[in-house]
Amino acid sequence: MAMKISKATLGRLPVYLQYLRNQIGKEYISAAAIAKELSLGEVQVRKDLAASCGGGRPKVGYRTEKLKRSLEEILGTDKAVPVVIIGAGRLGQALLGYSGFAEYGLEILAAFDTDESKTRLFIGGKPVLPVSEFSRFCGENHVQIAALTVPAASAQEASDLAVGAGIRAVWNFAPYRISVPEGITVQQENLALSLAHLSVTASVSALESMDKSW
Amino acid sequence: MAMKISKATLGRLPVYLQYLRNQIGKEYISAAAIAKELSLGEVQVRKDLAASCGGGRPKVGYRTEKLKRSLEEILGTDKAVPVVIIGAGRLGQALLGYSGFAEYGLEILAAFDTDESKTRLFIGGKPVLPVSEFSRFCGENHVQIAALTVPAASAQEASDLAVGAGIRAVWNFAPYRISVPEGITVQQENLALSLAHLSVTASVSALESMDKSW
Repeated sequence: MAMKISKATLGRLPVYLQYLRNQIGKEYISAAAIAKELSLGEVQVRKDLAASCGGGRPKVGYRTEKLKRSLEEILGTDKAVPVVIIGAGRLGQALLGYSGFAEYGLEILAAFDTDESKTRLFIGGKPVLPVSEFSRFCGENHVQIAALTVPAASAQEASDLAVGAGIRAVWNFAPYRISVPEGITVQQENLALSLAHLSVTASVSALESMDKSW
Repeated sequence: MAMKISKATLGRLPVYLQYLRNQIGKEYISAAAIAKELSLGEVQVRKDLAASCGGGRPKVGYRTEKLKRSLEEILGTDKAVPVVIIGAGRLGQALLGYSGFAEYGLEILAAFDTDESKTRLFIGGKPVLPVSEFSRFCGENHVQIAALTVPAASAQEASDLAVGAGIRAVWNFAPYRISVPEGITVQQENLALSLAHLSVTASVSALESMDKSW
């Protein structure tokens, strides 16, 4: 089932899943009941579930078990999606040590670096390995996603390495527009832009509250 | 002038500014000319500039100097917005050492931590300071934004500290929904959600290319 799920919807799916896991012995569950319990808008819940799992049955709602399994499938919590990191600088190490990925069915397996002083480090129980082991590791572990936390000057090379090892999605933190073959998905992360957006939003909000106080 | 600028528009403003800075001696510049030179859609450029600086004059376009100054004002590149970090773990250190914020008129001044083994570190020339110095530092440096890179359990306490020191915007990386007084802007950053979104997008794209090959 090919579907487009917005980031906002996706962010709420683990909350629904958590809730459903606690509904033991309930055969059916309605969007209205979920909305009420989680203090969310009913229209929003209905839309989220429709985008993820299709519609419920009128008057009855969703079969609880089936809805739970659909969410688990989307979130991949039945089996985690394996992810690796290229570049074990501060940001790469921060991602390697972060424990919040499991909730979304993602597992960071290892980071890779050309700098030998960094390899054989363990962070959160996960290794930093030499780049020479990258392709073999990705093949053996069926790795599908690589996060690039390398300097801009190394981003294309790192991306080529990942694509060559069979990866189908690249999460790029380097401030460089990488090119990839057709069929590979790239997501560009720009932390500076996020902060800039916050800064502008806060300025606007300050101006608006000045307007109000006139 | 209170305005809402989307993140996508904001991301392109530094590109326009860079271009305008190279247009020496040109009194007027049109959206069409900018679009052509930067290989962007003319409608997009026109919308971006209208959202940021209002409309140009028909047939003539924008006064180059005035447009440049408007962009500089929004991006704050005339004077940088001072930002601090609370929590000098791996992610906090990564942000402290990242040099890409200047392009958006932001300057990370320092990070703060309760762990004395981390204080007095310097990363990218910027200090990690003890939390006891936080309020004085923020007052003296007119700090407006705090990034929280602390564990979830410390997020509210860190936010309260920031708000108490006069900060008006919080960039929260901790997986915890902080509460702030009215008038304070919070931006929640969820890196796990970004990665999850990439993973779902890549799955959809793989399914779609299977559809095509049937």
